[in-house]
Amino acid sequence: MANTFGHLFRITTWGESHGGGVGVVVDGCPPRLELSEADIQPDLDRRRPGQSKIVTPRKESDTVQILSGVFAGRTLGTPICLWVRNEDARPEAYAEMQTKFRPSHADYTYFAKYGLRAWPGGGRASARETIGRVAAGAIARKILRERHGVEVLAYVTQVQRIAAQVDRESVTARQVEANLVRCPDAAAAERMIRLIERTRRAGDSVGGIVEGVARGVPAGWGEPVFDKLEADLAKAMLSLPAAKGFDIGSGFGGARLTGRQHNDAFRARGGKVFTTTNFSGGIQGGISNGQTIYFRVAFKPVATIMHEQDTVDEALHNTTLTGRGRHDPCVLPRAVPMVEAMTALVLVDHALRQKAQCG
Amino acid sequence: MANTFGHLFRITTWGESHGGGVGVVVDGCPPRLELSEADIQPDLDRRRPGQSKIVTPRKESDTVQILSGVFAGRTLGTPICLWVRNEDARPEAYAEMQTKFRPSHADYTYFAKYGLRAWPGGGRASARETIGRVAAGAIARKILRERHGVEVLAYVTQVQRIAAQVDRESVTARQVEANLVRCPDAAAAERMIRLIERTRRAGDSVGGIVEGVARGVPAGWGEPVFDKLEADLAKAMLSLPAAKGFDIGSGFGGARLTGRQHNDAFRARGGKVFTTTNFSGGIQGGISNGQTIYFRVAFKPVATIMHEQDTVDEALHNTTLTGRGRHDPCVLPRAVPMVEAMTALVLVDHALRQKAQCG
Amino acid sequence: MANTFGHLFRITTWGESHGGGVGVVVDGCPPRLELSEADIQPDLDRRRPGQSKIVTPRKESDTVQILSGVFAGRTLGTPICLWVRNEDARPEAYAEMQTKFRPSHADYTYFAKYGLRAWPGGGRASARETIGRVAAGAIARKILRERHGVEVLAYVTQVQRIAAQVDRESVTARQVEANLVRCPDAAAAERMIRLIERTRRAGDSVGGIVEGVARGVPAGWGEPVFDKLEADLAKAMLSLPAAKGFDIGSGFGGARLTGRQHNDAFRARGGKVFTTTNFSGGIQGGISNGQTIYFRVAFKPVATIMHEQDTVDEALHNTTLTGRGRHDPCVLPRAVPMVEAMTALVLVDHALRQKAQCG
Amino acid sequence: MANTFGHLFRITTWGESHGGGVGVVVDGCPPRLELSEADIQPDLDRRRPGQSKIVTPRKESDTVQILSGVFAGRTLGTPICLWVRNEDARPEAYAEMQTKFRPSHADYTYFAKYGLRAWPGGGRASARETIGRVAAGAIARKILRERHGVEVLAYVTQVQRIAAQVDRESVTARQVEANLVRCPDAAAAERMIRLIERTRRAGDSVGGIVEGVARGVPAGWGEPVFDKLEADLAKAMLSLPAAKGFDIGSGFGGARLTGRQHNDAFRARGGKVFTTTNFSGGIQGGISNGQTIYFRVAFKPVATIMHEQDTVDEALHNTTLTGRGRHDPCVLPRAVPMVEAMTALVLVDHALRQKAQCG
Repeated sequence: MANTFGHLFRITTWGESHGGGVGVVVDGCPPRLELSEADIQPDLDRRRPGQSKIVTPRKESDTVQILSGVFAGRTLGTPICLWVRNEDARPEAYAEMQTKFRPSHADYTYFAKYGLRAWPGGGRASARETIGRVAAGAIARKILRERHGVEVLAYVTQVQRIAAQVDRESVTARQVEANLVRCPDAAAAERMIRLIERTRRAGDSVGGIVEGVARGVPAGWGEPVFDKLEADLAKAMLSLPAAKGFDIGSGFGGARLTGRQHNDAFRARGGKVFTTTNFSGGIQGGISNGQTIYFRVAFKPVATIMHEQDTVDEALHNTTLTGRGRHDPCVLPRAVPMVEAMTALVLVDHALRQKAQCG
Repeated sequence: MANTFGHLFRITTWGESHGGGVGVVVDGCPPRLELSEADIQPDLDRRRPGQSKIVTPRKESDTVQILSGVFAGRTLGTPICLWVRNEDARPEAYAEMQTKFRPSHADYTYFAKYGLRAWPGGGRASARETIGRVAAGAIARKILRERHGVEVLAYVTQVQRIAAQVDRESVTARQVEANLVRCPDAAAAERMIRLIERTRRAGDSVGGIVEGVARGVPAGWGEPVFDKLEADLAKAMLSLPAAKGFDIGSGFGGARLTGRQHNDAFRARGGKVFTTTNFSGGIQGGISNGQTIYFRVAFKPVATIMHEQDTVDEALHNTTLTGRGRHDPCVLPRAVPMVEAMTALVLVDHALRQKAQCG
Repeated sequence: MANTFGHLFRITTWGESHGGGVGVVVDGCPPRLELSEADIQPDLDRRRPGQSKIVTPRKESDTVQILSGVFAGRTLGTPICLWVRNEDARPEAYAEMQTKFRPSHADYTYFAKYGLRAWPGGGRASARETIGRVAAGAIARKILRERHGVEVLAYVTQVQRIAAQVDRESVTARQVEANLVRCPDAAAAERMIRLIERTRRAGDSVGGIVEGVARGVPAGWGEPVFDKLEADLAKAMLSLPAAKGFDIGSGFGGARLTGRQHNDAFRARGGKVFTTTNFSGGIQGGISNGQTIYFRVAFKPVATIMHEQDTVDEALHNTTLTGRGRHDPCVLPRAVPMVEAMTALVLVDHALRQKAQCG
Repeated sequence: MANTFGHLFRITTWGESHGGGVGVVVDGCPPRLELSEADIQPDLDRRRPGQSKIVTPRKESDTVQILSGVFAGRTLGTPICLWVRNEDARPEAYAEMQTKFRPSHADYTYFAKYGLRAWPGGGRASARETIGRVAAGAIARKILRERHGVEVLAYVTQVQRIAAQVDRESVTARQVEANLVRCPDAAAAERMIRLIERTRRAGDSVGGIVEGVARGVPAGWGEPVFDKLEADLAKAMLSLPAAKGFDIGSGFGGARLTGRQHNDAFRARGGKVFTTTNFSGGIQGGISNGQTIYFRVAFKPVATIMHEQDTVDEALHNTTLTGRGRHDPCVLPRAVPMVEAMTALVLVDHALRQKAQCG
């Protein structure tokens, strides 16, 4: 069950970085939705590494193929299997990792857990696993957009210490896609890009923050106790590679406010309820209140760096390891479509749950 | 399913703040564990409101009763139902809330979702719901302690802007319980208490941060993809009332580091692997690496304050509401046993999952 | 999870035959349903042992109490906990069973699995566990009746070799309740009653068959593959104590027919589709087709008999055991409300699932 | 979730009879199991239609490909995706079914549920869906055999009215595979084959019964209440295409016995417990007791026959439809590997659950 996410709109991802490919089975998709590879490929292209000059180029096209669940251009209501073939397998690039554990990667923990591991490319811990999520997320986003009028968006707001100013109520997908770092604040974006290039030349890496927003979510999605909307979002985000933190609305900053400062007053106008502030981040008691949902996800600097580091090997001898080959010094731009996908998956699942129990 | 948490060690909480009581069904507990109410009551006492002079006293004893699953002092392997009767129902104290939604509470969202709500005491959104979690968590902690040698602990590290210094590797339960705010830094604790008293007199409330630690977790617990240990912890924590953020290891601060600074070098000594730093927070790729697990949870200031606030009523008219009656200006000390309980529930579930697949 | 049934209308039963009581938590019930104990008690009374002269009388009233999830007479959409206190605990009646395993009971298998067991009354394997199911089933039946126009009914069609003739399209609850064995064929019922009385005097027991029907189920409930409606019904029925078989529509008899005999021709009239025969039992490909659903459940003779039998004790010595005390020679009349309850639980779950995905 | 089976050894099948192929994702497989396509292909070959002169030949090779979860010949503990490409798509053979519903097929119910359907080949209701189950079942059987010493076997015991005599304690896979109908009673098998040939020439079809056995299951597998071993087996079997009934041990016949006849006496010898009879079918109170598990599955005659039949079309007009093309008059021989697969899937799941909670 570790590889399944969601209750009613349920995805199961499969595949390692090396092997027959990676993919996802989407179970619970409503029937009669128009769907083709063209709905999914753009998000995969955004997720794909090596897209720009700030990272090492790769050859993989990440071309998605729908293997099931769609007939004559429409979803059948049966499981949709999406598959992306692995093209760029280079096990030789990983030869040294066959016996040594890369620091702050999952090599050691997989070995400790399973007693073996797919050492080329990190196996299942590779970011390639997120291909399935992003593909499924594209379907979820389409359902949200077409059937619920909900828009899901993410963007980079911080790289290392460079922070951006973004108006979450008005920011557009176009603004996000306007630059290489997917930061809609053009000035900050430029500084971020320079920092990433500098970091890459230094063989180092940087972390940062992605903000996610969902606009147009009606009041009533989410569940009261364990499956609170923010709890499911937190799990979704912390399940992403390199994610180290999540906060919603006022978040960690809210811990410094008093109740008088923090409470969101309700007002009604024209039969509609709204809040005059939105420290709650669009969710109260686990359930959406109709305001914009927004949250932040912290990503650590990626672990692959071009420097010699201390580590141990499978025989538990102390040794060193030097990163080689591809180098993607900042995962944040690629994390943007991942955050969008996971957000959409959480929301569409709760939309179906709401319909089931209260519809 | 919204009221169920866990896969193999699975709890289902039930009950509203007013009504026949609150409780939990624990399914999947290993058999032959010695268990009595005496194992559970102490944590419920720690969770109980009105324990100290810094908050309004309450009359409820929160006495737990084991209704099933234990025979002759040992667990049977069958569901354990724990029940705490409601004693202190005072619906009259909530009369005004019958028609008005309290700001930043769940009154409005429950109404939007279900079309009705148990207005006295907030119903299921009341912190009374956490009684079931804390009771189940006491069982989980006992299993972790006795069968796995794992110690789970939480404590307050920040109230509003007052931050504490705590050594997470050596801090003890006794140090945590040494003062009213459950902050093991005695000097900071004193300042926190003074702040809370001041806040209470002002009819206001404050938020802060609780840190959770788990020591002695062996390498190998956790799942690679969606059910990463940190993802399940994040969900667990964000499911707590008033929680707004979660981060693990380096967390949001880690977003400001570079890879060279952040990577945890592996070393081996005497056949054991360890890391020289612990920015990972004891988890890599979703799986424990044998180091101490630690994380932070941000709590907003509680929404109940003794001031007049703008709000709307069920008829969607603008109105005002003034908090009355009990006032608990800082939820953090009571959140400590909740954080411990949820941590233990996540860990014991993964211990069983590990045993099932890889044992 | 072993004690939870259903996906969206999900019940978790708890409790042993001796101890604080037995009960159920119902999660996923739609909000705003009028509900009180009076909706549930009648089915519990039908399930209760010792109701008639053909069985040993008992003192337990099986009075249900709603502990949560209902406010001001209506369901809240939150978990409904139902509790029935144990009143008639007589551990002394079971003294011999403390060390000996009753043949064809679950004493030995529980011991083999868990290493201990609640020997008084069979613990969780006691038919008392079905109280929770019948209570939850009463809610499910109410939802089916009021919100979907679906009627669920069961009745005894065979006791040992005595078979009844029942028209499943027209039989009524009143006809079922007209006699002690809950067999709507009055002539057969009389013979059954005489057989049961004779069996009781002989200290022996008899088995038989219960038929379940659901009328008014619209086309489209059920899932294509694993969660076929008949598969979920089969599981539900085989989960009942003493159940040994299930078949639907033509069932085992259908295995003797040819395709030409067995196929149900479709016809349409007035914009409605129906079949001219109903060998399918109202389900095709796992999904209801709008015709009456009907199935049979085989029950073995209950294992408790008033005769000396060979068995072993916990020390694995050969010994004998003689049944004593209460004697219920035929479980079938009490199985009727159990079959109804499980049928209703399956159907209401699929009604919600249908609404979620295709509504 | 409709397409997922199992809790800890969890399979999700996907794919329609026409389209990119069919497959399965197996999640929860223990790591370090030697596995290659050669472990799976033989069972797929046994499942494949058109294997013998008694049925219409087909061209599909049903060649399985492992897409993930296996590295260097061993399972990784991560999801195993198995894929079989569709080769023999002939939508033109189904042209008439584009608008007409085949009687006693799932065409109408899928249409009623989803509002559309993959008319060529029956889509997801096609027996091709079982490829994924049989492939996953091959892995499950290997685990049972190698790690638990459990042997799972099925065979045909009845075709229409021709019944076989089989000793379930001694029958071997070799005896099952010795003839075209997979009936280990050679004399009965010959009569069955003649009947099937006659039926085929008549353009008709026949049903029958498959018996499944599991030998070597230790005492203690299975769960007490809803997930009783027999309940999960019942669900597994009724989820197979054309299955109409299931009974275990004495089954429907047991309903005619008395308790004195039916109870299985316990005896102990050499520290081992056994029963002198096995009416229980190896399961008591939902948990295995160490004796051989055996059960029967009733299959209706397949719905595809070469005769004109009354039906309706999508516009709800009365019409007729005549079966054409391939004709497989008896599904039973192919059902044998399906029954084995589903049995193995249930057992391995419970083996893991037992290990998790009680190991």
